[in-house]
Amino acid sequence: MAKASKSLKAAGKAAPGRAKPALRAIKGGKAPAAKPPALKPAAAKIAVKPIPLKPAPAVADDVPVIALNLPQAKLTPAMAAYFKKCQDRLGFVPNVLIAYAFDMPKLETFVAMYNDLMLGDSGLSKLEREMIAVAVSSQNRCYYCLTAHGAAVRQYSGNPLLGDQIVMNYRVARLNKRQRAMLDFAVKLTASPWSVEEGDRERLRRAGFSDRDIWDISAIAGFFNMSNRVASATDMRPNAVYHGQAR
Amino acid sequence: MAKASKSLKAAGKAAPGRAKPALRAIKGGKAPAAKPPALKPAAAKIAVKPIPLKPAPAVADDVPVIALNLPQAKLTPAMAAYFKKCQDRLGFVPNVLIAYAFDMPKLETFVAMYNDLMLGDSGLSKLEREMIAVAVSSQNRCYYCLTAHGAAVRQYSGNPLLGDQIVMNYRVARLNKRQRAMLDFAVKLTASPWSVEEGDRERLRRAGFSDRDIWDISAIAGFFNMSNRVASATDMRPNAVYHGQAR
Amino acid sequence: MAKASKSLKAAGKAAPGRAKPALRAIKGGKAPAAKPPALKPAAAKIAVKPIPLKPAPAVADDVPVIALNLPQAKLTPAMAAYFKKCQDRLGFVPNVLIAYAFDMPKLETFVAMYNDLMLGDSGLSKLEREMIAVAVSSQNRCYYCLTAHGAAVRQYSGNPLLGDQIVMNYRVARLNKRQRAMLDFAVKLTASPWSVEEGDRERLRRAGFSDRDIWDISAIAGFFNMSNRVASATDMRPNAVYHGQAR
Amino acid sequence: MAKASKSLKAAGKAAPGRAKPALRAIKGGKAPAAKPPALKPAAAKIAVKPIPLKPAPAVADDVPVIALNLPQAKLTPAMAAYFKKCQDRLGFVPNVLIAYAFDMPKLETFVAMYNDLMLGDSGLSKLEREMIAVAVSSQNRCYYCLTAHGAAVRQYSGNPLLGDQIVMNYRVARLNKRQRAMLDFAVKLTASPWSVEEGDRERLRRAGFSDRDIWDISAIAGFFNMSNRVASATDMRPNAVYHGQAR
Amino acid sequence: MAKASKSLKAAGKAAPGRAKPALRAIKGGKAPAAKPPALKPAAAKIAVKPIPLKPAPAVADDVPVIALNLPQAKLTPAMAAYFKKCQDRLGFVPNVLIAYAFDMPKLETFVAMYNDLMLGDSGLSKLEREMIAVAVSSQNRCYYCLTAHGAAVRQYSGNPLLGDQIVMNYRVARLNKRQRAMLDFAVKLTASPWSVEEGDRERLRRAGFSDRDIWDISAIAGFFNMSNRVASATDMRPNAVYHGQAR
Amino acid sequence: MAKASKSLKAAGKAAPGRAKPALRAIKGGKAPAAKPPALKPAAAKIAVKPIPLKPAPAVADDVPVIALNLPQAKLTPAMAAYFKKCQDRLGFVPNVLIAYAFDMPKLETFVAMYNDLMLGDSGLSKLEREMIAVAVSSQNRCYYCLTAHGAAVRQYSGNPLLGDQIVMNYRVARLNKRQRAMLDFAVKLTASPWSVEEGDRERLRRAGFSDRDIWDISAIAGFFNMSNRVASATDMRPNAVYHGQAR
Repeated sequence: MAKASKSLKAAGKAAPGRAKPALRAIKGGKAPAAKPPALKPAAAKIAVKPIPLKPAPAVADDVPVIALNLPQAKLTPAMAAYFKKCQDRLGFVPNVLIAYAFDMPKLETFVAMYNDLMLGDSGLSKLEREMIAVAVSSQNRCYYCLTAHGAAVRQYSGNPLLGDQIVMNYRVARLNKRQRAMLDFAVKLTASPWSVEEGDRERLRRAGFSDRDIWDISAIAGFFNMSNRVASATDMRPNAVYHGQAR
Repeated sequence: MAKASKSLKAAGKAAPGRAKPALRAIKGGKAPAAKPPALKPAAAKIAVKPIPLKPAPAVADDVPVIALNLPQAKLTPAMAAYFKKCQDRLGFVPNVLIAYAFDMPKLETFVAMYNDLMLGDSGLSKLEREMIAVAVSSQNRCYYCLTAHGAAVRQYSGNPLLGDQIVMNYRVARLNKRQRAMLDFAVKLTASPWSVEEGDRERLRRAGFSDRDIWDISAIAGFFNMSNRVASATDMRPNAVYHGQAR
Repeated sequence: MAKASKSLKAAGKAAPGRAKPALRAIKGGKAPAAKPPALKPAAAKIAVKPIPLKPAPAVADDVPVIALNLPQAKLTPAMAAYFKKCQDRLGFVPNVLIAYAFDMPKLETFVAMYNDLMLGDSGLSKLEREMIAVAVSSQNRCYYCLTAHGAAVRQYSGNPLLGDQIVMNYRVARLNKRQRAMLDFAVKLTASPWSVEEGDRERLRRAGFSDRDIWDISAIAGFFNMSNRVASATDMRPNAVYHGQAR
Repeated sequence: MAKASKSLKAAGKAAPGRAKPALRAIKGGKAPAAKPPALKPAAAKIAVKPIPLKPAPAVADDVPVIALNLPQAKLTPAMAAYFKKCQDRLGFVPNVLIAYAFDMPKLETFVAMYNDLMLGDSGLSKLEREMIAVAVSSQNRCYYCLTAHGAAVRQYSGNPLLGDQIVMNYRVARLNKRQRAMLDFAVKLTASPWSVEEGDRERLRRAGFSDRDIWDISAIAGFFNMSNRVASATDMRPNAVYHGQAR
Repeated sequence: MAKASKSLKAAGKAAPGRAKPALRAIKGGKAPAAKPPALKPAAAKIAVKPIPLKPAPAVADDVPVIALNLPQAKLTPAMAAYFKKCQDRLGFVPNVLIAYAFDMPKLETFVAMYNDLMLGDSGLSKLEREMIAVAVSSQNRCYYCLTAHGAAVRQYSGNPLLGDQIVMNYRVARLNKRQRAMLDFAVKLTASPWSVEEGDRERLRRAGFSDRDIWDISAIAGFFNMSNRVASATDMRPNAVYHGQAR
Repeated sequence: MAKASKSLKAAGKAAPGRAKPALRAIKGGKAPAAKPPALKPAAAKIAVKPIPLKPAPAVADDVPVIALNLPQAKLTPAMAAYFKKCQDRLGFVPNVLIAYAFDMPKLETFVAMYNDLMLGDSGLSKLEREMIAVAVSSQNRCYYCLTAHGAAVRQYSGNPLLGDQIVMNYRVARLNKRQRAMLDFAVKLTASPWSVEEGDRERLRRAGFSDRDIWDISAIAGFFNMSNRVASATDMRPNAVYHGQAR
């Protein structure tokens, strides 16, 4: 069997309005279809980049989902139900689940931890948790997590720019003090965990966070430091549908 | 006069279909409007993040364009014509031009160098030049350039994913050898210019680049190392319209 | 209630032969008890550091276990049984479990993932998994994990030096090619996850690892990148007993 | 034609008093001509490094000017006049101009931007602008720019030590608060542009800089981040005459 | 003669109770002797790591002492007496001395500087000097110095944990303000010497250090930045006996 | 007494032709004495930087020699003789010696180690040893050592450019393979000593170095990693005379 789990992938990916997504390498140096009309010599010194007229074609690059050849295992009833719920509610099964589906205990512990951290009780809003996910993933330059959780930030915030900003450099986002302190902590913990000390926790407390909140910020930042590395180590590819969500 | 050039900005920004863009800070920790329906206790262990039903509202954060109070100068006839051409062809004047418009010699030299490098004769396609711009800007985490030139990569390539990939981590893009060598050189030159030596140039030559091409790669990578820093130093904000282009 | 969970801690920590461990800060600049006998002036130019005669007294610094005030929750029956098993087999409950015990879902998902990765089926020996834990934790300079898992490497390998070497700099350990490749991958994935690519996976395959092994190396390295950060963020303290184990 | 533009180079380089500069690689390990007289055995424990008696011979290493084979284009009248002015006033044409002279639009836009930034109107003195050039180039370890602009700092300041200090580590220069703040900003912007924020601009304002000055500092720092990379990418060599200027 | 000085090594290393230390590479992936008893399937989800019953066998890896083939020179009388004193007082000759013993002037200058700095007059206690040695060596990840001086911190402090903490991350040690300031300075001086300025010296003065103390902190930190590099460059191996001292 | 040892300094510094060196801070933003003649408006777009006509005045910044108040001790006869020899042969006493002269044992061990390494028997030429000193000091951005040993490289090589190149970026120096391998090793050992392994030593052997040579390269690189830090920690100032030597 080829790499990744194509059959399940095929079932899970049918994003509406994206007929026949095709894996396409970027070829050559020239891009003839998008070539702008040549400027006349007289205008050469002040050229302007025109907008191509044709809509961008659908492109997918998430087959296989990962660069390891790990045949899918039979889903347990709980996981089969979970995948069905994803399909029903999201319209697709997130590729990270497909990646873990070669082994049910690994899939189940991942799902349990993820859902507890990101969707369970917490003093942090779901948006804030996603913001941590994206800020950490930006520090680690993780394609999968930036794509999937960048979309989540756009969705939860209703602000497409906020998602892009945290993907690119969270410092440019116009955050309130609480959220800025939260992301400063998460990014420092990501970049130099050895340097986090009581002064850093105190800064969070002064920004209004409880000790339980500090645990949650730390645990979520930790979780994405794990996920970023599993994704990068396996070349995990996000579902193509994420790229266009909530733009 | 307040910071940035609001009057010209107002004229230049009327992106179609985005009525009344409003500057909006991210408030508080909770995002009530986007709150997903609560899962029943029985389903708590396998939750799924639902997609909000309402379209994301338009949001803009590019007023003022920069964080320096530099009143706009009177445009020279050449620059006025150039701004008009931008407005006619793109539907807006790129904010970087508005940022430089406090001083005509600075605006004119910037425009001349930009257009020579990005739109003038070269062995590099326009897409390749934009790919360099984005890979360099990703290394430098420059919000303005990633937004504006990420959109350009999506436009020129007709591949929305390619833009996101180079924004996030160019190594995940499925590039041919030529383009990968080109971006490896540009990113190394960005991260540790002191370490670039003949071996690096030889790798480009083996990938099919001429000495003139090597100059162009270097000059474009250099140019965005300049622009990234001017943008970061001044908190330059990209036109909001870029975020949604060619998705 | 004060920080950490002292009652459970007191029950769990009774390491044999370490009566009344006391929290002790390092005071002043002088250490009179350990002061070596002064060398005579005539010998001053070639002094030798003598070994103090008295045995080192027991010292503990793991009360509280973490720097967050999170009162312990009531253990679920499964977790109560697990803590009892730890106490019976190890002689103590590892502090990381006490740290997570403020919330049963978090404790249970942590235990489930930990045990699956470190003790479940894998092509990696338990020693190898602990070596990854220590090499990653060394990169992140995590006191808790280096102490607890450094002890595990000493135990599993029967080689006290190997534990110290991986704690200090895994490159000095006299490893076979398989293990060196494994740790090189884990440490690169820790330090710069964005730079891990197919060539890195290929190096592991050439060293004899299967794709499933590569997943396991990645997942364990990822897990400790999470745990290191939770530990550093909360100032988690290892049980004092680890320091002397298997020396 | 060989690499670089030798004919123009030959015309431009006739530095007074440096007859027949010769390209010389550093050969072998021993340097017989400069060998100091051997100390007698009795003095071996307290040796002193004597000063060689002969004057250091002239050495040049700037042929070719760059490591790319780019035949020189015909100078436009404006550029021919500019080169002649350089020759008349400086005694040589700076090699960076010769490097760009393969393409007139590139040469002209470079010259226009350089002269606007470094010699045009500004609240920064010319010395301060050169100090920024050198501090940025030191961070990037750019041989060309450190040599050419280090000489300029020596010239403008009348202080040979100041040039060396900023080349080596600007923090050791005895600067006033204004200049220190200026260089701190420029170097931070060079090393981690993503981390520059409003607080950094505020520090400049408190040191007496206007918003226009902040633009100029940023633009000059940006410009040398560009030039450093073009120089490093092409192995650009400074005119040998710079090394001895204003010592 | 083979690498390192085996004859002298054999004489110097007879650590009591460690008959026939053998150089042992870590073989294979499995560690059968230390294999824990398998958990029953029913218990698989909450496994516990048991402690192996057999004592850890003696293992040495310090033959040869360094990876360079430098035959030992004849010891001068002073050095012979010094080695004998080491043997008598410590029970062994530290391997660093054996490493330098290929050349008497190098050995003597090393010993003289070491003893002056670490055992001569100073406002710093011997423990504090060893703490600097370990904190610097941790920053440089030096196996030899962390092992030998980690043991010294355990000995002088009578606190086995303190040694491990400074080896792993000095920030977790419960230090008083004086000692924390001292190690902060030493580690900053190690990691980025160019950034140390008057403000850093002032912080030491405010923590109670005299200018002479500041010299000593600097000189000791400098010395171990030298020794760490000599040790790493030559793969210097610490005497095995250090690992178990003062645990 | 004020900081540093002014009386001895005064005796040692009488560099010929530099009457009344004065400590001078760089004042204000304008440098009126060195102001170039203004270009006429018509020439503004192609300005050229003129050479100031007046010779650069003498400037010294090495009083006090260091930023610590350490009164000079009475020189031992050996050290008095050594200082006199420096004065006779060099025309001055190097400031590093004056800095150490507060304590005779420290001065003597420093001088003994320095002279053994830099002037004693070795397979490395004295020029090569100075090249290592400068390459290491460049990595550490040490003002004192770059100034003093940069002058030594210019002197020993008879090549003023070589000194500047290694100060700025040793990779641009036109070195033979032996010397390039030597400096690559020394700089890697400086920047990341933990990463130096057998492969690095092998590269030196293939470049023709003996194991003894490898020791010497390592020991010299180590020595300057020490000296750089002592100099940076104390703000040690090189004798002003070095700046102009062998230009």
